[in-house]
Amino acid sequence: MNSGNFNGLRILELLENHRSIRKFQDKVIPDEEIKKIISAAQTASSSSNGQAYSIINITNQQTREKLMGYAGGQRHILDCSHFFVFCADLHRIENIAKLSNVDMTESLESTEMFIIATVDAALFAQNTAIAAEALGYGIVYTGGIRNSPELVTEILHLPTRTYPVFGMCIGYPDNNDIPGKKPRLPIESLFFENEYIHFEETIEYIDEYDQTMKDYYANREQNKSKRNWSETITDKRKVPRRLNMKSFLNDQKFLLK
Amino acid sequence: MNSGNFNGLRILELLENHRSIRKFQDKVIPDEEIKKIISAAQTASSSSNGQAYSIINITNQQTREKLMGYAGGQRHILDCSHFFVFCADLHRIENIAKLSNVDMTESLESTEMFIIATVDAALFAQNTAIAAEALGYGIVYTGGIRNSPELVTEILHLPTRTYPVFGMCIGYPDNNDIPGKKPRLPIESLFFENEYIHFEETIEYIDEYDQTMKDYYANREQNKSKRNWSETITDKRKVPRRLNMKSFLNDQKFLLK
Repeated sequence: MNSGNFNGLRILELLENHRSIRKFQDKVIPDEEIKKIISAAQTASSSSNGQAYSIINITNQQTREKLMGYAGGQRHILDCSHFFVFCADLHRIENIAKLSNVDMTESLESTEMFIIATVDAALFAQNTAIAAEALGYGIVYTGGIRNSPELVTEILHLPTRTYPVFGMCIGYPDNNDIPGKKPRLPIESLFFENEYIHFEETIEYIDEYDQTMKDYYANREQNKSKRNWSETITDKRKVPRRLNMKSFLNDQKFLLK
Repeated sequence: MNSGNFNGLRILELLENHRSIRKFQDKVIPDEEIKKIISAAQTASSSSNGQAYSIINITNQQTREKLMGYAGGQRHILDCSHFFVFCADLHRIENIAKLSNVDMTESLESTEMFIIATVDAALFAQNTAIAAEALGYGIVYTGGIRNSPELVTEILHLPTRTYPVFGMCIGYPDNNDIPGKKPRLPIESLFFENEYIHFEETIEYIDEYDQTMKDYYANREQNKSKRNWSETITDKRKVPRRLNMKSFLNDQKFLLK
């Protein structure tokens, strides 16, 4: 645990320097590097060391094309070096239990186990992102694969008790097309002491962020806009989306209890 | 994006070096350091930049004692420098929408938005963990706060459309009590190409891991055991736990659709 002695601040700089990369060079990351990334990612915390996730590396171009279509047409799913689908996975533990004649159905169908598997997959994925960025690659998460979870499940042969949480593109960033760093909410609007501070008391910080993001959206290279953050996120979230998610997850035997 | 040029492998070493720390020195991390950690953590990817999370820093000792009781008595919740509760948060966006007379109820009650908020909180938390470890601190996640989500919600005054996903202890590790690095599943058992590999075809790797973990459990300093991983995780998961989670989340207006 002497990690703090080496260059900890450089690591914070790496985190601070994150941007989602959607333009990649036409180059493939060597297998050895991918293995290093996944191996480092696996050390992420996992509830009771259950490691309730799997990751599918999509190397088949036809599969990528289909996934791109399901996700809404993002070219970077095709253009990136590696496209990963991160799955929450209770299939493994179900089958381990079966080997010793333990029926785990009631436990695995609980909302609690859905949270455990989803969080396990997310922590692992974020370690994957950081490890990739540490080696100089760029990444972007693609929640778009949740547009058509049934089709993704079918094409990847996902068994029950697994679901595709999100994808991730990894590759060599196109250095001529690196987006600006996206500002985040002022810390005061989300970091509280001892109790939650209700929205009304944080409005000044939301206003401050709206002004910051208005400038950001107006001045960025692509997707320029005159809106602020509140308008942008309200517009994005006001239409209910993916209302089939619950029945899809129930079919996969999640969230039944 | 020239981050790869500096010491990327050292960052992978930091990730690889992770262990959950449960014994802390009696020292408090300076506020400046905490702010650096949170600020770096905020750069984690977030769905549509929605930042659907909040974090509550528990400085009040009485509140910590209560949370420790709710979570199952882990002393490190009291002994660590900082104890954070990470919340999935759709309260903020609900209220932003209300300001422009947009009723977002149907969207926010969807299972999809539950996933978005939970994943946003998890990615943010994992960045928090890495930033803290980069500066030499130790961390442990505490899922135990989900034992009594209603009580946690009450004591932290969490509004509807938020829920406590997990806690995290951060502090100066007790260097006399650093656990060994916990081995993870062989990469072959969870990293697949183009399609999911069913459990039956991965058994050899599970067997390999069982042997690895049997040695680990038998030889570690504390909580020695004669069991392997399959036995340990089956035992942990076979009893359904936290079956009140669904009704709690429904009361908080999550997962209604």
